[in-house]
Amino acid sequence: MTTAPTTRPFEVRARDGRARAGRLTTAHGPVETPSFMPVGTQGTVKALTPAEVRATGAQMILGNTYHLYLRPGLDVIERFGGLHRLIGWDGPILTDSGGYQIFSHRERVKITDDAVTFQSHLDGSYHTLTPERAMQIQAVLGADVAMAFDHCPPGDAPRALVEEAMARTTAWLRRCLATPRPAGQMLFGIVQGGADVALRRRHLADVAGLGCDGYALGGLSVGEPVPAMYEVLDAVADEMPADRARYLMGVGTPCDLVVAIGCGVDLFDCVMPTRNARNGQLFTAAGRINIGNACHRLDEGPVDPECDCETCRTVSRAYVRHLFVAQEILYHRLATLHNLVYYQRVVRDAREAILASRFEEFARAFLARDATAPAEPAS
Amino acid sequence: MTTAPTTRPFEVRARDGRARAGRLTTAHGPVETPSFMPVGTQGTVKALTPAEVRATGAQMILGNTYHLYLRPGLDVIERFGGLHRLIGWDGPILTDSGGYQIFSHRERVKITDDAVTFQSHLDGSYHTLTPERAMQIQAVLGADVAMAFDHCPPGDAPRALVEEAMARTTAWLRRCLATPRPAGQMLFGIVQGGADVALRRRHLADVAGLGCDGYALGGLSVGEPVPAMYEVLDAVADEMPADRARYLMGVGTPCDLVVAIGCGVDLFDCVMPTRNARNGQLFTAAGRINIGNACHRLDEGPVDPECDCETCRTVSRAYVRHLFVAQEILYHRLATLHNLVYYQRVVRDAREAILASRFEEFARAFLARDATAPAEPAS
Repeated sequence: MTTAPTTRPFEVRARDGRARAGRLTTAHGPVETPSFMPVGTQGTVKALTPAEVRATGAQMILGNTYHLYLRPGLDVIERFGGLHRLIGWDGPILTDSGGYQIFSHRERVKITDDAVTFQSHLDGSYHTLTPERAMQIQAVLGADVAMAFDHCPPGDAPRALVEEAMARTTAWLRRCLATPRPAGQMLFGIVQGGADVALRRRHLADVAGLGCDGYALGGLSVGEPVPAMYEVLDAVADEMPADRARYLMGVGTPCDLVVAIGCGVDLFDCVMPTRNARNGQLFTAAGRINIGNACHRLDEGPVDPECDCETCRTVSRAYVRHLFVAQEILYHRLATLHNLVYYQRVVRDAREAILASRFEEFARAFLARDATAPAEPAS
Repeated sequence: MTTAPTTRPFEVRARDGRARAGRLTTAHGPVETPSFMPVGTQGTVKALTPAEVRATGAQMILGNTYHLYLRPGLDVIERFGGLHRLIGWDGPILTDSGGYQIFSHRERVKITDDAVTFQSHLDGSYHTLTPERAMQIQAVLGADVAMAFDHCPPGDAPRALVEEAMARTTAWLRRCLATPRPAGQMLFGIVQGGADVALRRRHLADVAGLGCDGYALGGLSVGEPVPAMYEVLDAVADEMPADRARYLMGVGTPCDLVVAIGCGVDLFDCVMPTRNARNGQLFTAAGRINIGNACHRLDEGPVDPECDCETCRTVSRAYVRHLFVAQEILYHRLATLHNLVYYQRVVRDAREAILASRFEEFARAFLARDATAPAEPAS
C-alpha cells in the first residue's frame, strides 16, 4: 500500500503583484480564490435555493454560528448530521464562531477571560460561550472551515480595549486549537488590532505563531474610516502566511474586494450584495442603481445590459421596480440573484486577470468605473 | 383558398355524471379543464417565477385588474404591450374586472347605475370605473379572458341588495359586450344571486341570454355558509350553458373544488393555496398541517411523502419549519410551490378520473380522506 499524496489545504496557483489566485481544498470540494462567500445567516442565503446560489458561481457559503445555535438549535442540526444535509447545500461551508454577532449586541454581553455570557436577541434567554463551546458548536454544524472564537471590539474602541481584545483572542485561539475537531475540519485564526498597523502586525505574529489552517483579518469594516481599513490591508495582508488562505471578514463593497485582492487577500464574505438587494440597491457595470427610483418606471431594458444573470436575461427594470415598490417576494429573489452574480463576476474577473498577469490593469479600470456610481440622473 | 376550421373556444371532451373534462382554447394556448388558476394579484404569483408556476402544472393564471390598474399603472403595462410581456408569462391570463376588489372595500366606494367611484387603498386617490372602462383596462392588460364588470354584494346582503346587484350586473354586462375588445379576447359573464337558488336561476337566464364566451358564478365564498354555496352549486352549475366554460370565482378549499367539479364546474381561482402557504398551512395527502407546530421541529421527512414537488423532493419538514419560524423568504417559495402543486394535482386527478369514468369514486375517496384534516396530534 502506498499513501495517497496529501492535498495541501491551500495552494497558490499564480501571483500577480501581491494578488493571488489559489485553491482552498475542503472536505466538500475546492474553492478557487479569490472567492466571495454569500452569507447564509439562518441556514439560507436569503431568498435563494442552494441550486440558485451555486448557479451564481458561489463555491462556499458562510453560516452564522450565533444564529444557528439559537435557531433552529443544535438538536435539530445534530439530527441531520450537520448543516449541509439540513439546508441541502453540498458545497463547502465556513462558519463564524459567533463572537462577532455576540459582541455586536454590546449591552447584552458580559465578557471575562474565560467566557462570554449573552442574551438571545430572540427571547432574552441567557447563554454562555467559551472557545471550547464555540468549537463544539461548529463541530455539530459540520463546518468545513471553523473560525476561532475571537474578541472583536468596535471600530471606535480605545487602544487599551483593542490590546485587551488581541490578548484575549490569542489566548482563546490556543484553547480553540486544543479542542478536538471533526476529521477534515479546518480552523482559521483571526487577527485583531483595530486600525493600528503596528498592533495588527504584533497580533499577526502572535496568531501566525500558533499555526492555523488559514488566517483572517477580523475587526475591519466595523465603523472605522475606509482609508484606515485600506491602510491596514496594504500593510498587513501580504505579511500573512503565504501558504495559507487569507480571509477578510465581513468586507465589503465591490471596490473593497478589488483593493483587498490587490493587497493579497483570498477570501471574502459580506451581507452587502444580499442586504442591499433587499433594500433596492442593485450593482451594475455602470454603477449602483436604486431600483425604486421613478426613472426606472417605464424602462424596458434589463437591470444591467452587461449582466447575463437570469434576472437580466428575463425581466425589465420596469418589472423589477414594480415588484420592489409592491413589496413582492419575487423582487427579493430577482434582486438577490442579480447582486450575487455581480459579486461573483468581480472575483472571477479578478482571478482571471491574476492568471493572465494583468490584475493591475483590471483593478485600475474597475476602480475607475465603479467610481461613476450612482448611475442615475440626479432627481 | 379554404377557410381553416375555427376552433371552438370551449369543448367538452368527456362527461362523467355532471363532471366535465374539457378544453378552453385561448389566444395563448389551451387550458385543459377542470383547471385551477393561481392568483397573480400584482403581476406575480407571490414568491414564484413564471417558470415555476408553469412547472406546478398551472396553465392559466389570474391577474387582478384593480391592483394592476393602480400599480404599476396602465402606462407601464401599455409600454410592454400588455401583462404577458411585462411579467414574462406566455400562457393564458384571465383578469377579473376589478369589481370584486372595489366592493370589498365597502366604505370607500360609491355605486350608481352608471359607475363606481372608489378610493385607492394605496394613496387614497379617487378613481371611477364603468363597465366600458373596465373593458378598456382589460384590453390594455391583454387578458385572454376578460371578466364582465359586475356588482358583487357581500354574503350577508339583504335580498333587495342581491336583486339590485343582479339587475345592475345584467345592465353592465350589456355595456361590456358593446365595448370593443382586442382580437382573440374572450368575455365571460358573471351570475350573481347570492345563496338563493331561485335568484341564481333567474340571473343565470338573464346573463346566458346575452351570449358570452363563458359564464362565471360570482358572489360565492363571500361569507355565506358553505352548505349554502354547495346548494347553489348543486342546483345551478349544471344549468349553465353546456357548451361554454363554467368558472367558479374565488373558490376554494380542495374539497370545494372536488364538490364543484362534481356539479359541472370547469374553472377555479383562489388565493387559498398561496396565502395559506405564507401563513404556515400546508396541504398534504393526509390532511392540512401547520408547519410552525413543534411536532415538525425534528422531522426529517418531507412535507408530504406522497408529493413529488421540489420542496418535498429536496427538503425536510424540520427545515421548512425552521425557515417559517425564522421568517425567511425561502420559506414562502417552498411552501407556495408545494401548495400549488397540491392544488394542481387535485384538478389533474379529477380530470383523469372523469376521462376514466370513475369520478364519483375519486370524489368519494378524496372527500373522505380530506376530512381527516388536520393531520397533526392535538397539542
